[in-house]
Amino acid sequence: MNPNNQTPSMPVLAILGGTGKEGPGLAMRWIKAGYKVLIGSRQTEKAQLTAAELNQKLNTNTVEGLTNDQAAIRADICILTVVYTAHQAALEGLKDALCGKILVDATARIDYKNPRPPDPPSAARVAQDLLGPDVRVVAAFQNVPAHMLRRNLDQRLDTDVLVCSDDLEAAQVVIQLANAGGMRAFYVGGLDNAVVVEGLTALVININQYYKVKAASIAITGLE
Amino acid sequence: MNPNNQTPSMPVLAILGGTGKEGPGLAMRWIKAGYKVLIGSRQTEKAQLTAAELNQKLNTNTVEGLTNDQAAIRADICILTVVYTAHQAALEGLKDALCGKILVDATARIDYKNPRPPDPPSAARVAQDLLGPDVRVVAAFQNVPAHMLRRNLDQRLDTDVLVCSDDLEAAQVVIQLANAGGMRAFYVGGLDNAVVVEGLTALVININQYYKVKAASIAITGLE
Repeated sequence: MNPNNQTPSMPVLAILGGTGKEGPGLAMRWIKAGYKVLIGSRQTEKAQLTAAELNQKLNTNTVEGLTNDQAAIRADICILTVVYTAHQAALEGLKDALCGKILVDATARIDYKNPRPPDPPSAARVAQDLLGPDVRVVAAFQNVPAHMLRRNLDQRLDTDVLVCSDDLEAAQVVIQLANAGGMRAFYVGGLDNAVVVEGLTALVININQYYKVKAASIAITGLE
Repeated sequence: MNPNNQTPSMPVLAILGGTGKEGPGLAMRWIKAGYKVLIGSRQTEKAQLTAAELNQKLNTNTVEGLTNDQAAIRADICILTVVYTAHQAALEGLKDALCGKILVDATARIDYKNPRPPDPPSAARVAQDLLGPDVRVVAAFQNVPAHMLRRNLDQRLDTDVLVCSDDLEAAQVVIQLANAGGMRAFYVGGLDNAVVVEGLTALVININQYYKVKAASIAITGLE
């Protein structure tokens, strides 16, 4: 897909806003699984710093730090992991760079100090409306505890990824990506359903507080 | 609590709108656990028919069928299991009967033919606003697959109950009730959070359809 990809059958991934908590955790699992990963940030220097840290931790030199725009242009699949207050501004600058690609939107519009369910439309619906039909938006990874991603990279995570998209084929690609990172993932409907997945983040924060745990999350049951 | 209760330490339960799919399933588990259960319906005859069926299935004679109003007056805890289109009308007639009691609202405002996340406010918030502060409203049991409740009454269900209430003490009572029925249950915040739990029903229907299963549900992970 991309000439820079060291394993030609695997898509190149760009983690946009990849210098926060969630982005580097996801990156680690995909680097470990053999993907070429680009870290994007508004500032090249910040992206390069995170890339260097990831290269060091995983004993590789394949991770590159770029601006979000540069990373998006070179990638096949982009994963947006910005805080919700930066969501719309980040997307507005990336419309052209994302053309023809899959955008995975991991945004949960939750204030961690005052968690409550966000109103519709979902962040991913906002993204799809803003980016138009040439970008295939998929909502995923909103509920994965960031600090769990970085631990025991070879182990499966005890959390399931709920995947929403209006494009079933794109959803399937993201389900494979989650699987490669050690997470079970399930298709749960169109982009409007992502508002529920965002809201789950508020519930999970409540569980963490009330039951005094740090990594509550959810799993799907009843599949057999 | 109630002179009619055969086991004085256990509250009397009324399943209001208890002749549908979910109500009798919940009733079976609580009867089995030793609770006195009243079945309420708009029509006495329908309630008596369901009560008779439950008595026969569980080889007992303790279940009684009454109007919703009569059942609510005699119960300590009422569980509302009407379809969402009947939710508001059912509550309006029960305000006086529910005074001083716990009302467990199991309503998910989902059209099963076209499942999509409901908008706020949650059904339970609507109930609390309508009933006023003399009724302690708790949202629970929206996602429990009805046909699973009726199977293997002695086994734990592979689904977790997410419990919302503005009254933590009432939430704890309902968590114990879920536990007695063979379900794990967790407090996930105030009544406004119940909109997420309702929305999960839409996602679970999508999972059932897409993965060709019949009893998808959810569980909480990361509690250790």
